Amino acid sequence: MKNVNASIITIGDELLIGQTVDTNSAWIAQELNKAGVWLRRRVAVGDVWDEIWNALDEESKDSDIILITGGLGPTADDITKPLLCKYFGGKLVVNEDVLRHVNYLFEKVYRRPGPMLERNLKQAEVPDVCTVLHNARGTAPGMWFEKNGKIFVSMPGVPHEMKGLMKNEVLPRIPKYFKLPIIIHRTAFTMGTGESMIAEKIKDFESSLPQHIRLAYLPGYGMVKLRLTAKGNDKEKLEKELDEKFDVLKELVAEWLVSDEDENLAMVVQKILKEKNKTIGTAESCTGGYIAHLITSNAGSSVGYKGSIISYANDIKERILGVTDKTLRSAGAVSEETVIQMVKGVVEKLQVDFAVATSGIMGPDGGTDEKPVGTVWIAAGNKEKIETAKLAFRFDRERNIEMTAHAALNFLRKFILANT
Amino acid sequence: MKNVNASIITIGDELLIGQTVDTNSAWIAQELNKAGVWLRRRVAVGDVWDEIWNALDEESKDSDIILITGGLGPTADDITKPLLCKYFGGKLVVNEDVLRHVNYLFEKVYRRPGPMLERNLKQAEVPDVCTVLHNARGTAPGMWFEKNGKIFVSMPGVPHEMKGLMKNEVLPRIPKYFKLPIIIHRTAFTMGTGESMIAEKIKDFESSLPQHIRLAYLPGYGMVKLRLTAKGNDKEKLEKELDEKFDVLKELVAEWLVSDEDENLAMVVQKILKEKNKTIGTAESCTGGYIAHLITSNAGSSVGYKGSIISYANDIKERILGVTDKTLRSAGAVSEETVIQMVKGVVEKLQVDFAVATSGIMGPDGGTDEKPVGTVWIAAGNKEKIETAKLAFRFDRERNIEMTAHAALNFLRKFILANT
Repeated sequence: MKNVNASIITIGDELLIGQTVDTNSAWIAQELNKAGVWLRRRVAVGDVWDEIWNALDEESKDSDIILITGGLGPTADDITKPLLCKYFGGKLVVNEDVLRHVNYLFEKVYRRPGPMLERNLKQAEVPDVCTVLHNARGTAPGMWFEKNGKIFVSMPGVPHEMKGLMKNEVLPRIPKYFKLPIIIHRTAFTMGTGESMIAEKIKDFESSLPQHIRLAYLPGYGMVKLRLTAKGNDKEKLEKELDEKFDVLKELVAEWLVSDEDENLAMVVQKILKEKNKTIGTAESCTGGYIAHLITSNAGSSVGYKGSIISYANDIKERILGVTDKTLRSAGAVSEETVIQMVKGVVEKLQVDFAVATSGIMGPDGGTDEKPVGTVWIAAGNKEKIETAKLAFRFDRERNIEMTAHAALNFLRKFILANT
Repeated sequence: MKNVNASIITIGDELLIGQTVDTNSAWIAQELNKAGVWLRRRVAVGDVWDEIWNALDEESKDSDIILITGGLGPTADDITKPLLCKYFGGKLVVNEDVLRHVNYLFEKVYRRPGPMLERNLKQAEVPDVCTVLHNARGTAPGMWFEKNGKIFVSMPGVPHEMKGLMKNEVLPRIPKYFKLPIIIHRTAFTMGTGESMIAEKIKDFESSLPQHIRLAYLPGYGMVKLRLTAKGNDKEKLEKELDEKFDVLKELVAEWLVSDEDENLAMVVQKILKEKNKTIGTAESCTGGYIAHLITSNAGSSVGYKGSIISYANDIKERILGVTDKTLRSAGAVSEETVIQMVKGVVEKLQVDFAVATSGIMGPDGGTDEKPVGTVWIAAGNKEKIETAKLAFRFDRERNIEMTAHAALNFLRKFILANT
């Protein structure tokens, strides 16, 4: 079966001056992938007529589906709509449905006083050669064009508007135009070793994979996900084959395996808490609430998570968590004794079954010869027992916080599994 | 003066299956921009020989500098190095300096037991037609090629390694090859209104700008940054001209102006605290530590920030923050009374001058007819006075948390300014 290929064209100077990180592309890529469409290329261009025009020409050479995001805002620098109009040989007309929707949004949802601005009214104009896609979440509609057997879709760059359009309008339409293969994924989520070590361990397995099953290494903060992707036509046969291979892979990386699903670490912890009917809390100094954020980013996190004490200042460590003045003066805030007392304090104060604590020097300043930037103590425990670990990172502040938070959550996960 | 143009080529299937969000490109774009190089295009391709080859051909047509990231890892799917070797007509040779560095990293830094893996040794191989750039932070060196007056630089995709290479090796070399214009930016950071409203307010200003000064709208979570960029040769004259324009712009958006620097909201709050010698704490329910994280992500945040109570469960709100059982039962956790009591509790418990509290329903579940998903109460106050606001968002969980956290921090900022 012929591959169905796609390209993403992202339009906007904001991406080329670096003010915006492009999170849309990764999301679109995942959705296309699930649907059996292979994303061939992603291109970002500025708000420049020729650049956009050339990108449309180039990408439609080898791709069947060209998804265009951005360049549809109400401000003056947006030239995308007139360009699309010319490219596909149409003219701009006011679409009554879109106009009604824009009016509705301004009156009922945004509740903006006064008359609608001219530039918002312009949002209701669309090329008369496209199928208009309803954008329930914003004023700029999606636009679906067809040309020489290729499909072009223009969407606003605002992530939640683009996502709504993709889910409700674009993805359901694609299978009507192209015959798509069945794509199945299995993901093994590992922590505790590096990409090289895993590659060494599974090299024979990797080279034994048939052509229609691919392996991808997906490294993250202190973790590596291994993804097997199978492509074919017979779903049942494909699943059976993939599961067999996946079982072998899981066996090979068993010592580092955190989960056999594509989920984040906080979700894994959440499942354990639900299953064992236990609760946790965190006492964070250097991670400054980031562990709490990782946990509460997941829906349903209130099941096992009760709360946290973010004790950034030493007097909070003392007064709320009960770390002793003596410990802080003799061993210091970044010490094994401190994190042990932090865990004790949070288990008692929040009345949780398990707790994890962090204290470290995240940088760029605050390091000493004895405790350089990147020095971290973590502890996990319950009422009976507390375990500790000393970590040393060599990164920038942001990454040190990420690494510490993930290491601490994994340390907590292991402690819970070993002590229930 | 002719523009010096650049392209970024990002290599790796992980970007095309959507497992990795590309944060490198935005960072590189910012650095190039500061240096006076205009990023023309960004392209992402998979680990596919022809795609990479074509991207090199295409991008070097109109760009002077082609920065390549990714595809240099130690695993089997990396074909970039052999390809670069062929593209520039060289052969792979072991570089003794790189080999020494790789050995050093494995022995002294990573402290991996046992013999070095063959695939790590391969990291020391480089094409004999490139200038090797020292990667202090990892095993894969940077590679600098020149062809037909164009510059090509290959770097690993690991963000902190790429950043080190760019700062220490790549950016300092560029001015030796190209005459670069002077580029100056000024950024006005606004909150409290939308892009359209601002555009309407400043449309005359915008159309009066000379050709060498550009205005960009940079919308974020509940905020819009307005960036003026001037390009020229005479630094002094350019700065004077830009500052005059920037003063006019600031005047026009004064009611929404948060800062006249390109910084984040937590930094603005931090500066105020330092200047006024005051301290803050947060009491977070629905934001689950995200406000604390926003604050502590900035270096030096310990100056005014003392800590937080993340009271996700109601019994933490009661026991630690002193929210009354009566309030929780009658008004509920998401209510004005609750956030008022949370602020009181945190001001007292953490002994801070000011505090902010959040309680809301972030979704996707937990909404009711009376309090739908997106309903949020926030409060900011000190010992004498507490102010509250009710917010309503219509987004997904992630965005609701982002919006709430930024709205709450801004509410706190305004309260501090009005009450000191």
